[in-house]
Amino acid sequence: MRRRDFFKNGLLTTVGFSVLGSRPIIAKPNHYAADKAKNIIFLVSDGMSSGTLNMADLLMRHKLGKASNWISLYESGTVGRSLMDTASANSFVTDSAAAGSAWGGGNRVNNGSLNIGPNGEEHRPILQKFKEEGKAVGCVTSVQITHATPASFCVNQNSRNSMPQIAVDYLKLKFDVMMGGGREFFDPSKRSDGRDLYSEFEENGFEVVKDKSEMLKATGTKPVLAVFSEDGLPYAIDRENNEELKKSIPSLAEMTKKGIELLNKNQNGFVMQVEGGKVDWAAHGNDASALLYDQADFDEAVGVAMDFAMKDKNTLVIITTDHGNANPGLFNPGPKNVRFESIFDSKCSNEYLLGQIKKETSASQVIEMVNHYQNVTLEKDEASLLLKNFTVGENGLYNTNKLPMEVFGQILSKHNAISWAHSNHSADFVELAAYGPGSESLSGFVKNYELHNFLLEVSGVKRSLFASV
Amino acid sequence: MRRRDFFKNGLLTTVGFSVLGSRPIIAKPNHYAADKAKNIIFLVSDGMSSGTLNMADLLMRHKLGKASNWISLYESGTVGRSLMDTASANSFVTDSAAAGSAWGGGNRVNNGSLNIGPNGEEHRPILQKFKEEGKAVGCVTSVQITHATPASFCVNQNSRNSMPQIAVDYLKLKFDVMMGGGREFFDPSKRSDGRDLYSEFEENGFEVVKDKSEMLKATGTKPVLAVFSEDGLPYAIDRENNEELKKSIPSLAEMTKKGIELLNKNQNGFVMQVEGGKVDWAAHGNDASALLYDQADFDEAVGVAMDFAMKDKNTLVIITTDHGNANPGLFNPGPKNVRFESIFDSKCSNEYLLGQIKKETSASQVIEMVNHYQNVTLEKDEASLLLKNFTVGENGLYNTNKLPMEVFGQILSKHNAISWAHSNHSADFVELAAYGPGSESLSGFVKNYELHNFLLEVSGVKRSLFASV
Repeated sequence: MRRRDFFKNGLLTTVGFSVLGSRPIIAKPNHYAADKAKNIIFLVSDGMSSGTLNMADLLMRHKLGKASNWISLYESGTVGRSLMDTASANSFVTDSAAAGSAWGGGNRVNNGSLNIGPNGEEHRPILQKFKEEGKAVGCVTSVQITHATPASFCVNQNSRNSMPQIAVDYLKLKFDVMMGGGREFFDPSKRSDGRDLYSEFEENGFEVVKDKSEMLKATGTKPVLAVFSEDGLPYAIDRENNEELKKSIPSLAEMTKKGIELLNKNQNGFVMQVEGGKVDWAAHGNDASALLYDQADFDEAVGVAMDFAMKDKNTLVIITTDHGNANPGLFNPGPKNVRFESIFDSKCSNEYLLGQIKKETSASQVIEMVNHYQNVTLEKDEASLLLKNFTVGENGLYNTNKLPMEVFGQILSKHNAISWAHSNHSADFVELAAYGPGSESLSGFVKNYELHNFLLEVSGVKRSLFASV
Repeated sequence: MRRRDFFKNGLLTTVGFSVLGSRPIIAKPNHYAADKAKNIIFLVSDGMSSGTLNMADLLMRHKLGKASNWISLYESGTVGRSLMDTASANSFVTDSAAAGSAWGGGNRVNNGSLNIGPNGEEHRPILQKFKEEGKAVGCVTSVQITHATPASFCVNQNSRNSMPQIAVDYLKLKFDVMMGGGREFFDPSKRSDGRDLYSEFEENGFEVVKDKSEMLKATGTKPVLAVFSEDGLPYAIDRENNEELKKSIPSLAEMTKKGIELLNKNQNGFVMQVEGGKVDWAAHGNDASALLYDQADFDEAVGVAMDFAMKDKNTLVIITTDHGNANPGLFNPGPKNVRFESIFDSKCSNEYLLGQIKKETSASQVIEMVNHYQNVTLEKDEASLLLKNFTVGENGLYNTNKLPMEVFGQILSKHNAISWAHSNHSADFVELAAYGPGSESLSGFVKNYELHNFLLEVSGVKRSLFASV
């Protein structure tokens, strides 16, 4: 795997204002063309703690000389800012299903549920409501299109784990654009019931797309189902460093751009969710390279959405996350921040790197690999500790399901200055940025479920039948 | 030590609006009486990561049934919100001296310096500028009054460690109100040079105050120096659970209230810094009970400042922190958040509890103590691990300087669901809330050093002679 200048090539999209922003200004509602939002783009960097936003911005500022789009939007006063309470019905700490359902159904549900309340109440998912109002609707994500966050805008299911059924639900819903990973839930050779959902989607009038070039060719005469990978899409850093993946798998920004192009053909407007789902996976894995480059990949999608919205003037853009995860931070970066700068030259995710370690790999070889891929020189005892933590299963040392992600994350902390409080979700209040018609009515602190009626109100669609909790 | 209803008695001050806030509103600049701020109250919860604000708010909502003042101010739209970049001149991760100097002197300096730049440039501290303009000025803090954050608004020193000299600087500056801890730097029996600064302050026209009742009696006919403790003040949770401390040591809110009363006698207005300095110490110690109750203590001071400002209408209030610390978060709180609720019944800081462990204390006794003081039942091997981590020094098991704070914090994580990424400062961007004349001109993202000129501008004082970096 050769190093690519991911960022130099990758972040082509910039929002239309100076990063250096002279004097602070306040977002001006009168920049918008109408009182009501015709379109909504709802962007979710899944599981983004405060430190993730911070470190990705530092990476971009100091590697590229330009701030992240998200922070630039704050700096220029282009967007409003809120802090959001992300709790679920049964915990201060939500999962993505409950968090998404709060937005998607307007009510807090128990962790794991998709728009079904603690007593079995079904809350109508927001994209069904918007579809009924004549809007084009869709989701794009870097994880399975059937995963909790997109599913929370689309379906009712007792469990987020019912992904094979959620794929079937999508067949019936016939939404206009659904793009992400998850071949495992569409391919007959992967489904336990043997159903060929690809064929069923085509028979039901969909265009089924399986790689980036097919996606780029789609014209939107039919609804589009795009499935680019077996489960989640590869991490951005691994995609950008592999020519084959780069050719076949679009970035989140590319999916977002195509999604807007297709959905915007509808004269009544559109509503699209965009999820940077692997930010959450990287945080669970304490995988700094995966995390920061996927956050940057998400940030590029923010740029695409804002480019469109600032020209369109009829589009509400929400940029947020569903919950914190792992609360990583940059600590003791050393003289001239040298430890953190090792991330600038990282060529792969920790997950990818650990996947290269085989039964016969020695500690010296581990040191060589980590040095080559991530510009970090491990101590011999660190390499040995890492090897010791590989589970010896039936197939020998290497076990895809039990990679020692946390151990490696902790070992790297001393070298890249990035430390983690945990490997799961936190209760932290989270960032929410809003641009476009109606955005000025959001206060400085919102509860996640309040967003549901907010989205219906600002777009002029009637309020939910279900009262907010 | 009996349990006291700290919160039920403690948080008497409430800001004048409904916590439940009906519909979001935007802060209305026309609520203020004038274009320029006559007074400034600058409140700093030192070392407050995102999770600290979140967990203190959860504690207050669920123990008291009312949100924190800080979050209520967001919820009601009373204040503006910014995210602040806290870097120093030589690191993405600042210390309190450099962070305070950015505000205090308008320029980033190297970590450890107080308003002296990398090439020896002296940046005039902001309270000196305001004093010269005829304003009354002062600082109140829960740590030594000579500590980095208050000192950064007052003096130029190459090193924050020059606290004995900073105390002498204060003698000459003759600011109107200086309150906090730090007897070690004023008392002749503690100072290595044997100077009796208490007498020197009195000879120089100060009223010297040494406990809470003396503080309450002060009338402000003279400048006030108040020193309540040897080094930092006790943690709020330890103060509230000890009748003697509660009688002699004021809370941050009580100091803030008195500070406002004294400074507000000046017809030209006043500028006061208020620091919740022990929030930072608690984060360094991974001490959850200390952290959350000290954040609540700070929040009460926020209420006092806002009460005054909302009546006065001529006062700018800034509520912020200088940097993140430890990035704690609430993770896996268990069914009905039961693990986190152990914090509701905590009766002392970890530091206090560890201070009770003696050479002869057994593991069973440790279990009993932790259960009594913090409502947590340790496993036997956890108690043993804790004992094993006490340093055996010359004076036996107990060593005040080497309490196993981090080990205890980690052990408690499994029980109270609060985990820590580190025990030092982070690079995280931080919260900044602003109320009052000029606050509407702050954008959604600011750099710490920009606050210096901002404060001078909104109060109508001329701009700094020194350009911002």
